[in-house]
Amino acid sequence: METVSTNRSSGGTQGVYAHSSRSCACEMTFAVFTPPQAEEAPCPVLWYLSGLTCSHVNVMEKGEYRAHAARHGVIIVCPDTSPRGDDVPDEKDNWQFGSGAGFYLDATEQPWRKNYRMYSYISDELPRMISDNFNADMDRQGIFGHSMGGHGALTIALKNPDRFRSCSAFAPIVEPSTADWSAGAFKRYLGEDKQIWQDYDAVRLVEGGARFSEFLIDQGEADDFLKEGLRPWLFEEACSKAGIPLELRMQPGYDHSYYFISTFMGDHVDWHAARLKA
Amino acid sequence: METVSTNRSSGGTQGVYAHSSRSCACEMTFAVFTPPQAEEAPCPVLWYLSGLTCSHVNVMEKGEYRAHAARHGVIIVCPDTSPRGDDVPDEKDNWQFGSGAGFYLDATEQPWRKNYRMYSYISDELPRMISDNFNADMDRQGIFGHSMGGHGALTIALKNPDRFRSCSAFAPIVEPSTADWSAGAFKRYLGEDKQIWQDYDAVRLVEGGARFSEFLIDQGEADDFLKEGLRPWLFEEACSKAGIPLELRMQPGYDHSYYFISTFMGDHVDWHAARLKA
Repeated sequence: METVSTNRSSGGTQGVYAHSSRSCACEMTFAVFTPPQAEEAPCPVLWYLSGLTCSHVNVMEKGEYRAHAARHGVIIVCPDTSPRGDDVPDEKDNWQFGSGAGFYLDATEQPWRKNYRMYSYISDELPRMISDNFNADMDRQGIFGHSMGGHGALTIALKNPDRFRSCSAFAPIVEPSTADWSAGAFKRYLGEDKQIWQDYDAVRLVEGGARFSEFLIDQGEADDFLKEGLRPWLFEEACSKAGIPLELRMQPGYDHSYYFISTFMGDHVDWHAARLKA
Repeated sequence: METVSTNRSSGGTQGVYAHSSRSCACEMTFAVFTPPQAEEAPCPVLWYLSGLTCSHVNVMEKGEYRAHAARHGVIIVCPDTSPRGDDVPDEKDNWQFGSGAGFYLDATEQPWRKNYRMYSYISDELPRMISDNFNADMDRQGIFGHSMGGHGALTIALKNPDRFRSCSAFAPIVEPSTADWSAGAFKRYLGEDKQIWQDYDAVRLVEGGARFSEFLIDQGEADDFLKEGLRPWLFEEACSKAGIPLELRMQPGYDHSYYFISTFMGDHVDWHAARLKA
């Protein structure tokens, strides 16, 4: 693991790190905020997964999580959203596919399956890197994210309920296998067999029997993507039928931007901290 | 005044606005955060002046001021740092002069004096725009800023003590007429007569008799520019001799970045709010 940069912030350290990833067959970069409490004892780990077009940088600069994480003594890990690099296949002009659009799945189709393995990267490889290099209490992990990263948080939590104690999302894509801005990517990453798609779709996972303790979702009512891409009511219905507690908060006037995310970041970090430190 | 964008954030509105500036003879863009309290009553106005290379965007995205401003019911105005545009003279490869480096002065030299009039813009033209278009209590104004913007805040407050009730700074350039990264710009904007330079130099203004109620300054000890460009001890000495209360807080480990600014943003907004609402 190589240290790209560190900056003192909120009494802790905002770091950026890089490593050669086996899962993604390329160099991957990620951000970690280490709170001051990590100098004394292992701290819980909260994973933040970002949305389409983002890297680790966007939420690190605009997410306003550090003061809250420092208050609670929580490590925040912000991975990239896809493999990147000259040797990684991409479509430069397509923001919904390729670089910045890994959709937190393991691609099965050529030429994507060599690099686009973000599910394995986030659920297996990067946690070991965090465990080995930071004063992290890996028995206390939570996960959240925004939009495509909300999809990632919900599906990864549903597939790994023993690993995560808490899961929340900002404006998640809850049913990516049918949403207009993700179904095309699923087809190209995963092929025609829609049975495979269901393994990366939060609504389908719940319908198929996956369970998690509870969820918190914030959704802006002025979000341009609400009715076509996001549709949180689909997840609400699935959770209701499955008996999974879901607090879905519709927020009047808020859109899909980091101005929305940063507004409710404190609520989410508080919510996770209460469960991770219980 | 044209509205460029508005986003709901922290219960208020983060807006970006543009107008044709008489002072700068070009279109100028600025950001205003309006807290929810402004729907009910006029709110105090806190001016944030940014540093070299920045526009209104940097602090709007990375400064983490909105939650604090909303808590106190304070309007935050973030102007640009210079005139800009195809018709504005500039030196593209020089980050210490021209675009992004207006130094909050009124240039007297050709070809700069037509557009580079940021002192008049900030102290006269933009306040009238704010007063006319927002629910602002112009009898309650404070000013702060970072680096070159800290210089701007200190000098504009010292020159207008009746207009501002409070002034603070993050890592300000306190004596720009002798600092390595500003003396060259002063010479080109203001000419050879150093008497004129003193009117835009916080240390010289205090030495020359200018007074202000009190100052708060935060300065990172790991700031690469501390010893050559910033040198807060020069201002400390001048204030001490003049009997002006100055709280200078040296912050171990902090650098010159927005990770530093955002860490202490809450302290500064609290500090201003206490004085603006007294």
